[in-house]
Amino acid sequence: MANGTLLYAQSGGVTAVINATASAVIQTARARKVKVLAARNGILGALREDLIDTSKESLAAIRALAHTPGGAFGSCRVKLKSLEADRAKYERLLDVLRAHDVRWFLYNGGNDSADTALKVSRLAQEFGYPLTCIGVPKTIDNDLAVTDCCPGFGSAAKYTAVSVREAALDVAAMADTSTKVFVYEAMGRHAGWLAAAAGLAAQHEGDAPHLILFPERAYDEAAFLAQVDKVVKRVGYCVVVASEGIRTADGTFVADAGGGKDAFGHTQLGGVASHLAGRVKDVLGYKVHWTLPDYLQRSARHIASKTDVEQAMAVGVAAVEYALKGMNSMMPVIVRTSDAPYRWKIAPASLDKIANHEKTMPANFLRKDGYGITAAARRYLEPLIRGENPPPYGRDGLPRYIALKNVAMRKKLAPM
Amino acid sequence: MANGTLLYAQSGGVTAVINATASAVIQTARARKVKVLAARNGILGALREDLIDTSKESLAAIRALAHTPGGAFGSCRVKLKSLEADRAKYERLLDVLRAHDVRWFLYNGGNDSADTALKVSRLAQEFGYPLTCIGVPKTIDNDLAVTDCCPGFGSAAKYTAVSVREAALDVAAMADTSTKVFVYEAMGRHAGWLAAAAGLAAQHEGDAPHLILFPERAYDEAAFLAQVDKVVKRVGYCVVVASEGIRTADGTFVADAGGGKDAFGHTQLGGVASHLAGRVKDVLGYKVHWTLPDYLQRSARHIASKTDVEQAMAVGVAAVEYALKGMNSMMPVIVRTSDAPYRWKIAPASLDKIANHEKTMPANFLRKDGYGITAAARRYLEPLIRGENPPPYGRDGLPRYIALKNVAMRKKLAPM
Repeated sequence: MANGTLLYAQSGGVTAVINATASAVIQTARARKVKVLAARNGILGALREDLIDTSKESLAAIRALAHTPGGAFGSCRVKLKSLEADRAKYERLLDVLRAHDVRWFLYNGGNDSADTALKVSRLAQEFGYPLTCIGVPKTIDNDLAVTDCCPGFGSAAKYTAVSVREAALDVAAMADTSTKVFVYEAMGRHAGWLAAAAGLAAQHEGDAPHLILFPERAYDEAAFLAQVDKVVKRVGYCVVVASEGIRTADGTFVADAGGGKDAFGHTQLGGVASHLAGRVKDVLGYKVHWTLPDYLQRSARHIASKTDVEQAMAVGVAAVEYALKGMNSMMPVIVRTSDAPYRWKIAPASLDKIANHEKTMPANFLRKDGYGITAAARRYLEPLIRGENPPPYGRDGLPRYIALKNVAMRKKLAPM
Repeated sequence: MANGTLLYAQSGGVTAVINATASAVIQTARARKVKVLAARNGILGALREDLIDTSKESLAAIRALAHTPGGAFGSCRVKLKSLEADRAKYERLLDVLRAHDVRWFLYNGGNDSADTALKVSRLAQEFGYPLTCIGVPKTIDNDLAVTDCCPGFGSAAKYTAVSVREAALDVAAMADTSTKVFVYEAMGRHAGWLAAAAGLAAQHEGDAPHLILFPERAYDEAAFLAQVDKVVKRVGYCVVVASEGIRTADGTFVADAGGGKDAFGHTQLGGVASHLAGRVKDVLGYKVHWTLPDYLQRSARHIASKTDVEQAMAVGVAAVEYALKGMNSMMPVIVRTSDAPYRWKIAPASLDKIANHEKTMPANFLRKDGYGITAAARRYLEPLIRGENPPPYGRDGLPRYIALKNVAMRKKLAPM
C-alpha cells in the first residue's frame, strides 16, 4: 500500500452511471495499491466521519458497480457555503481527512461539487496539509462548463429518445379514437439538454416529437396551443416534450404556475406536463395523456448509452491518475476531437473554470421557431446516446444490480 | 393463393408485443399461401372498408414487426354494442368481409374484442356466410379469463419491476438529505396485476417497493400514511407502487378524488401518484417524488420480456392455424403446465368463456396486510418477465422500429 488513502464521494442527484465512475476509481486505485475510502452520503459522510472501507468489497462487487445505477455509497443534496461562511465545516472536513491520512480527495458531482473541491483544496494549502483535490464530472443535466458533455447525460438522453419514440408509436396507433396529444416531461431546470435529446427520436419530417419546449425560450401559451392544434390537424396527433424548467416571458416557472388544490383543499402536485395537458384539454378539447418519468429517466441503467458508460469510467480512471500525479484542483473533462467519426479524449481542466459555471444550450441548437432541434444539435447529441451496454440479467428477468456491504471505518474523532 | 383472404385487426390499447402477434399471423398465413388484409385502426377500418394489403410489405418488414411496439395497422377504442343495438354495423362489417372474400377474421384484443368476434361469427352463421372468427389475446392488464396470462402483460410487468428497482436505488442514495418517499403509478383500472409485478423488484426484506396499493383492497388513507411513516423510520425511505385503480371503501376512485383546479382555475390533471405524494407531503411532511410512466410502460419494447414475446408470437401462429382449420369462435390461450421449470403451451378456448369476463388477482396473491405480494404471486409472475429480447439498435443508438407502408386496398363498396 502507498502512503495515504484516497477519499471518494458522490454528490448531488445520482445517475445511471455514477457508479461506473466509482468502479473505475476503485479499480484504478487498487491497481496502484492505493486504499480507497468512500464517504457515506457524499460530503456529509466526510463531515460525520462516516467513511466506508471499500477494501472490504470483492473485486467482483466493484466490477458490478459499473452496471449498477444509483449511488452505491449514498449521495447528498448539501451545498457548503463560502469558505468564510462555512469555515468550521471546511476545517472539520480537513480534520477528518487528516485523521484518516487522506492525501487524495475525489469529489464526483456537478458544478457545486467542483466548487466544494476547490475550496477544500485552498483550505488544505492554507493549513499546509498535503492534499490533492480532484473534481469528477457527473450530471444528467449536461450543464458543466469546459467538458464537452457530462457522464450521466448520455444515458438519460438515450432513455428520453427511446421512450419518446416508443410512446409515440403507441399514440400514433390509437389517435383515431383515443389520445391525440401526449406530453412528456423531461428533467432540466435551467437547460433543455434532455428535452433536446428527445429530438433524436424523430428521423423524418412529421415524426414525433412534434414540439419541444425549452427553458431557453419563453413559453407562450397561445402560440404553443396553436402549434399543437396545427400538428394534430396535419399529422393526426401531437407528441410534445417539455422541459421541467420552461418559464413564461416574465420568468415564472410554468411548473409553479399552478400551485393547485384538489376539491378537498389538499395540495395537488403537478408539474409542467400535467399543466400543459390540462391546457390542451381545456382549450383545444383533445384527449390528452402525459408522462412524468421523474427518477426513472436518471436511473435507467438498463438502457444506458455505451458511450456514456465508457466516458463515466474514463473520467474515473483519469481522476485517480491526476490525483496520484498531484494535479491539484483539476477535473478530467471530455474533449471531443471529431464529430464523424465521433472521437473523444480525457484532458485536465482547472476546477476554477468549472465551479459555479453553468452551460446552457448554444443558440444554434434550437430551431428558429423554438420548437425543435437543429442539425448542429443532432451532430452533438447523437454520438452521446450511441451504443448499448445492458447490465447482466438474472434468471428472474431482472438486472443483477449489486448492493455493497459498505463497512464503516472505525471513527477516530469526536463527533462534530 | 388459397381461396379467400384473412382479415386481421388490432383492438384497444396497444402493447409492446401486439405487433409480434401480427408478425406471426402474417408470416404463418404467408407460409400457407393465404393473403392477409389488415383493418386500419381496428374494427373501424373494417367498417370503413379501409383495409391494408399486407402483401405489399417485404418479409423483412413483417419480421421487423416482431420487435416494434405500438400497433402497426392502428388500433381503436370502439366497443360495438349488442347485435340488436348495433345490428346495422355488424351487417356492414359482414358486407365488407364478403366484398373482400374474407373467410377468416382474427381480432387481436381484450375481452371486448372477444365479444365482438363472437357476435360477428354469430351474424355470419345467421346469414349463411362461411366465416371463421378467432379472438387473439392481448392486454397489458392481464385480465382475460381462461388464459393463464395475456400477451403484452409480461413486458409491461418487466418494465415495471425493472423501473421500480432502478428508481429505488436512486431514492436510497439520496434519502438522507432529499426525497424520502417515492410513488410509482402503475396502470390497471380494475385489477392490480402490474402493481403486483412491481413486487418482483424486491428480493429481500426491506427491499423496495415497500408498499403496494391494489385496486383489490379498499384504500384507507390513515392506514396508508401510518405505513409510509413506519417504513421511512425503519428503512430511511419508502417506495410506494400504486395501481391507478385504487378506490376508497365507498368505491370512489382515488384518482378522481381530486378533480383539482390550479390557482388560475384551470383544470389540473393529477392521478393516483400525484394525489398520494401530495398527502404524504401535507400530512407527514416528507420530501416526495412521484412518477407517472403512463404509455411508456406499455410501449417499452426495449425492455420486453422474452417469455412475453414468444407467447405473443405463439398465439399469432395458433390463431392462423385455428382459423384455417375452421375452429370458429375460438381463442388460442396460454396454458401453464408447470411453474418450475416454467412450461406453457397454446390451447383453444371458446370465445364465449372469455368475452366480457374479467380476471382479477386471486386473493392468495395479496399479502394479508394488503401492501404486498405473496410467494404464490411471485411463482406466477416471475416466469412472465423472464428473459430479454431487445430490439436491434441502429448506429444512432436508437431501436430500429419499422414503419410499414400500409397500402390500402381499393374500395369495393359505397361508404357506410
